[in-house]
Amino acid sequence: MERLTLFEMQQEVDKHISQFKEGYFPPMSLIVRLTEELGELAREVNHRYGEKKKKAGEADGSIAEEIGDVLYCLTCLANSLHIDLEETHRSVMHKFYTRDANRWTRKED
Amino acid sequence: MERLTLFEMQQEVDKHISQFKEGYFPPMSLIVRLTEELGELAREVNHRYGEKKKKAGEADGSIAEEIGDVLYCLTCLANSLHIDLEETHRSVMHKFYTRDANRWTRKED
Amino acid sequence: MERLTLFEMQQEVDKHISQFKEGYFPPMSLIVRLTEELGELAREVNHRYGEKKKKAGEADGSIAEEIGDVLYCLTCLANSLHIDLEETHRSVMHKFYTRDANRWTRKED
Amino acid sequence: MERLTLFEMQQEVDKHISQFKEGYFPPMSLIVRLTEELGELAREVNHRYGEKKKKAGEADGSIAEEIGDVLYCLTCLANSLHIDLEETHRSVMHKFYTRDANRWTRKED
Repeated sequence: MERLTLFEMQQEVDKHISQFKEGYFPPMSLIVRLTEELGELAREVNHRYGEKKKKAGEADGSIAEEIGDVLYCLTCLANSLHIDLEETHRSVMHKFYTRDANRWTRKED
Repeated sequence: MERLTLFEMQQEVDKHISQFKEGYFPPMSLIVRLTEELGELAREVNHRYGEKKKKAGEADGSIAEEIGDVLYCLTCLANSLHIDLEETHRSVMHKFYTRDANRWTRKED
Repeated sequence: MERLTLFEMQQEVDKHISQFKEGYFPPMSLIVRLTEELGELAREVNHRYGEKKKKAGEADGSIAEEIGDVLYCLTCLANSLHIDLEETHRSVMHKFYTRDANRWTRKED
Repeated sequence: MERLTLFEMQQEVDKHISQFKEGYFPPMSLIVRLTEELGELAREVNHRYGEKKKKAGEADGSIAEEIGDVLYCLTCLANSLHIDLEETHRSVMHKFYTRDANRWTRKED
């Protein structure tokens, strides 16, 4: 199966948004959207792994779907600011392999 | 340039985490981490595009780096729950192209 | 009208929680709850003041009610950690009147 | 000790903000501020009660102070929208004593 690259994911989101007059929300509004979507993800995770169980009769949600919504909003923010998600990933990993190299307990220790 | 797939990104994060005894935080703690990182992203975006300017002498942050940290924590959560980010992306795009197809104003309208 | 003090508000929340075996959630879970409730508040504010309008037929929410839910969860966290909200308010105001005294533009300037 | 009412707290915040030309941020920006402050609270709680310990040499933060910052931003949002925090508290408690009366396990059960 041909796997999707981060770059292609950003292009797919851009293609979708470019059909509409509204275009990308401004960055501050995309943070508000991310706050909303992270809240929905928090709710699902709490229902499954936390103390706050679903109310009787409340429909089952999907953690995967909520992760997809957060990823979509994060991609909109990156696209709107011309930020390459693959590059952000590489710099974060570089930070962990250098600055934070001794932050956690190595299995061989 | 060979582009990184979402699957390879998840594998890179997994390889990094698997070196350490701590392993992945539990899902509830990863939501707390996501809340922390989204807060840092919000701060940077507000400094650049909102009303709350940096204090004099405050170091410049990087929106790209903060996006990378949110993406990293989201990938940790997906990995720890065996969720394929490419699949979540596909199902979100499917939702937008079907259920929300008429949610926004088409450019040709 | 006799007005409610912050202390009495904390006591009312404590009286409500103390009826139940579950008691207060642990601090990390209360952060997850706050993330969920801030998400719901973000959604309502976006509907009213942002670009993301309600879907047709979607019930009207209440910003006041969502603010109340965030305040309730914040009070649960303060109560569970024996933190006096009035004291936290006083120290924040002290910070603004001293450290941040010149952060904004005075009207007389 | 004369205790501070929620109404007086809102007045104190309003008095502070009214000195400055900037006045209250718009509601969407106050959500971005709340996201930033909740992130800082999440960070402190995680350091104290979660898996993510402070880095060596990292200064101790204060959960009480971060709670105060969240409360301050929430009060700014309520003030700017002419919402009475005491009323929001009463309506939330009413909701818990009626709609959610049987949501948790009573100690006598």
